[in-house]
Amino acid sequence: MALLTEDLPLIDGHCHAITTGPLDDAAFELWCTEADEPPPAGTSYLDSRVGLALRRWCAPVLDLPAHAPVEDYLRRRRRLGPDEVAGRLLRAAGLSALLVDTGPVAGGLADRVVLGTLAGAPTHQVVRLELLAEQVAPGTDAGGFAAAFGEALDEALPGAVATKSIAAYRHGLGLDPARPGPHEVSAAAARWFRDGGRLTDPVLLRHLLWSAVEAGLPIQLHTGFGDRDAALARADPALLQPFCEATLPFGVPLVLLHCYPFHRQAGWLAQVYPHVHADVGLAVPHLGARATAVLGEFLELAPFGKVIYSSDAYGLPELYLIAAAQLRHSLGLVLAEMVDDGAAAPADARRIAEQVGAGNAARVYRLG
Amino acid sequence: MALLTEDLPLIDGHCHAITTGPLDDAAFELWCTEADEPPPAGTSYLDSRVGLALRRWCAPVLDLPAHAPVEDYLRRRRRLGPDEVAGRLLRAAGLSALLVDTGPVAGGLADRVVLGTLAGAPTHQVVRLELLAEQVAPGTDAGGFAAAFGEALDEALPGAVATKSIAAYRHGLGLDPARPGPHEVSAAAARWFRDGGRLTDPVLLRHLLWSAVEAGLPIQLHTGFGDRDAALARADPALLQPFCEATLPFGVPLVLLHCYPFHRQAGWLAQVYPHVHADVGLAVPHLGARATAVLGEFLELAPFGKVIYSSDAYGLPELYLIAAAQLRHSLGLVLAEMVDDGAAAPADARRIAEQVGAGNAARVYRLG
Amino acid sequence: MALLTEDLPLIDGHCHAITTGPLDDAAFELWCTEADEPPPAGTSYLDSRVGLALRRWCAPVLDLPAHAPVEDYLRRRRRLGPDEVAGRLLRAAGLSALLVDTGPVAGGLADRVVLGTLAGAPTHQVVRLELLAEQVAPGTDAGGFAAAFGEALDEALPGAVATKSIAAYRHGLGLDPARPGPHEVSAAAARWFRDGGRLTDPVLLRHLLWSAVEAGLPIQLHTGFGDRDAALARADPALLQPFCEATLPFGVPLVLLHCYPFHRQAGWLAQVYPHVHADVGLAVPHLGARATAVLGEFLELAPFGKVIYSSDAYGLPELYLIAAAQLRHSLGLVLAEMVDDGAAAPADARRIAEQVGAGNAARVYRLG
Repeated sequence: MALLTEDLPLIDGHCHAITTGPLDDAAFELWCTEADEPPPAGTSYLDSRVGLALRRWCAPVLDLPAHAPVEDYLRRRRRLGPDEVAGRLLRAAGLSALLVDTGPVAGGLADRVVLGTLAGAPTHQVVRLELLAEQVAPGTDAGGFAAAFGEALDEALPGAVATKSIAAYRHGLGLDPARPGPHEVSAAAARWFRDGGRLTDPVLLRHLLWSAVEAGLPIQLHTGFGDRDAALARADPALLQPFCEATLPFGVPLVLLHCYPFHRQAGWLAQVYPHVHADVGLAVPHLGARATAVLGEFLELAPFGKVIYSSDAYGLPELYLIAAAQLRHSLGLVLAEMVDDGAAAPADARRIAEQVGAGNAARVYRLG
Repeated sequence: MALLTEDLPLIDGHCHAITTGPLDDAAFELWCTEADEPPPAGTSYLDSRVGLALRRWCAPVLDLPAHAPVEDYLRRRRRLGPDEVAGRLLRAAGLSALLVDTGPVAGGLADRVVLGTLAGAPTHQVVRLELLAEQVAPGTDAGGFAAAFGEALDEALPGAVATKSIAAYRHGLGLDPARPGPHEVSAAAARWFRDGGRLTDPVLLRHLLWSAVEAGLPIQLHTGFGDRDAALARADPALLQPFCEATLPFGVPLVLLHCYPFHRQAGWLAQVYPHVHADVGLAVPHLGARATAVLGEFLELAPFGKVIYSSDAYGLPELYLIAAAQLRHSLGLVLAEMVDDGAAAPADARRIAEQVGAGNAARVYRLG
Repeated sequence: MALLTEDLPLIDGHCHAITTGPLDDAAFELWCTEADEPPPAGTSYLDSRVGLALRRWCAPVLDLPAHAPVEDYLRRRRRLGPDEVAGRLLRAAGLSALLVDTGPVAGGLADRVVLGTLAGAPTHQVVRLELLAEQVAPGTDAGGFAAAFGEALDEALPGAVATKSIAAYRHGLGLDPARPGPHEVSAAAARWFRDGGRLTDPVLLRHLLWSAVEAGLPIQLHTGFGDRDAALARADPALLQPFCEATLPFGVPLVLLHCYPFHRQAGWLAQVYPHVHADVGLAVPHLGARATAVLGEFLELAPFGKVIYSSDAYGLPELYLIAAAQLRHSLGLVLAEMVDDGAAAPADARRIAEQVGAGNAARVYRLG
């Protein structure tokens, strides 16, 4: 069967700020990997699935043949200039909307408005809980932390469609699911204020999560792989099962981000907990053509109404396009195989594609 | 190569009681999932792999075209009535025998005799250890528990071909492998009798398991996914390795049920422990067409004589058929791919299919 | 696309000593499995992926048709005699070099020189750390252990290209990553010398690892599945992440061996840690034709310059050939699928094959 999905509407359910300044080759390469050190001698981070996907999906948008060498691509990229490159790649992604985690906006990163303009699509904000807490901390004391954080969250929410937790990075997902009491929270805040550093205290991380539950917007949770800062063995979404159980009565959607290589565990959680969803972001761009295999695995236990597309793109405009193009291609292959096998009618396949591409995100995040 | 397995003899190595009463649409849908709550607004549990498999394999048996809409299927089902539906679907499963875990027989569930009559095949009993203990408990005291349980097990065994443990649900599989002593057991029983509730004490769960080892019948153990009551992170069959080691000298077969998403771990256990086997049940019906991929993974490290078919069907007659039809289809695809690749001769492929479908179960459970 | 890899140069990056004596059928069968007990009645360890691979790849080398029955194969093997069989199979493997863990050389095993002569290729030594420590122990006391081990390692290194740790077998990979101090080491050595037995103390295992880091050669680490002696739940390479983090400043390559079924975790470590590599050994021969699927999974997050071929063959000459033939075939299929899908140009596919087959091993182990 021919691919069904070249024109598939896509909502990018989780992405980050984009770089718009010029990049040298080494910096470009580091944006293409979850690593943060230069590659070992004799290797390149672009000699990878993401590198192949970049040459496949992005080179033609910059007027080069598919699979042009990386050197040609980088030369062409410099000649066109960052604005032209970003505009072409983002428009080629063909996104209907973008949900942007505006957390880490360091130097050289453009804000959400620029990203939306480049993509020609509306953007929506995702509020990163730990960052908000770290921004609030300097202006309060331990006893006032909970109230100050609550006020800051209340202020941030009206413009947002979701909150986001990176508790997986800061402590791991093996958290006590109980909502901590006020005295626990102020005692934990006192420890944090005394010791300084990033917010890693599990009591505070839980307080942030439960504040998000109370706020009522869908909560995106980092699970599975990420950069080196993530402890993979503590990022299995199955560790979140007690929190899924505790939050079930509240009905607030939990969206498990990334999931890989624990995406089958995430699929099970998405089947047995009505409020749990699985997001394919990060896996799709970083696995390149292997996204086909991994999307097949995502679509095992998770009901089709629970799997959500995103890119988790960060920095390079290429990553927004690679994710979108690869998702359309790979999901098309997964569904075509189902039809060829007799497992689904063509109309079912198209409907599943539309749900994963945009329908589920629109419903869960109430994008209207 | 053409599929080899449309006529494959199948023994359903693990299934449950069947519903025979009329069901409304919401109840039907809940029987099709491991979830126990209504689905979130805008979604359906039948918009899933199991839903597609139902429309593919069951609709034609009720005189509808494959992939008929769920609504048409449910309407047709009501018109035919539960007895006609159950009879058609069970006979279409073409089972040679069924091993029935007669554990949870709630209202509306038929007994094993009815199931066997509908299927037109002999049934064999599987004794659920924890249920037996809970039935025994009210009639004894802590000091007498071990003896009373032993007597009840002795009485239950003559009609049974296997025992079954759901320690994974009640405590998790990270159990101390040592057989607990009599004083430990009576002290644990005293705690249980005092506190009430389900049997979750790990000492008692181990006592049940070791009683089953002594009884000598194959022991089926829940591992991997299940309903929401299962703690997935504690259900990895690799956690059973110390118990596999401790029971090796006794030679009693251990059959790891379900296994997914830890089926590769189960396959390794089935390779290195002569008495350990891996059962594909639950995974096959709930994954629908993805059973093809997962059966391929089951058939990696596990020797072909160690992989056993079952459905884990419970309640709906559809599930017995979906599992059987999907197994025949998916195992056929796995084996055809092996032959096409040059990895196996056609006669080997057929032999492997016969082992997985019925031969291994007949040998391990001594079905004669 | 036709397969690219029939003539692919291969360096076997990790293998063991070979048997050269005659074997009866039962002994032959046990060499083909990670199990160490006879198979249960009615089954055979050769009724498995490795058995099918043996009949496919080895039978023609002994002048039999592919897929000849095991009985025919064993008869033909006896007629040709062990030397002729070993010579034919090793030469057919077409290896450019072999890295040999000369650890466990029990009776009937030939030394490295014999293996190299049979293979017609240079061999290089891998020093097994725990074995070296156990050889050193009888000649020293607790206070002198560290110095004696250091001297023995210094002596062993000039002829070696890598060291190897089996801490996964002896304790599990959840080790404190810190280098133990001299007093900790001598206290641990005192405990070991008092209690006897194998070296399983985590302090000593860490001392060996850090001595290897100081020595500077690449360190091969057992991870994932192995024989029954391995505790699979403690062999997840993700548990090594703290050690990867701690050793990053030293730049000494860490090569994660086997990895399966945690090879996706290993691939992530190989992406985010410049000094970490993933080796496909053991998985390839023991999975037979399923190596195709698993190699696809290895080649997800791991950059192509970080995936290394080996066989982990031990004992049977068949295993060196099965691994080599299956790697060429399966990697060829993985890469052909990438080309057919449009994911890679043919020249890229060939380059990836050459890296995985030999280029990465030559660079990492400095084989010159």
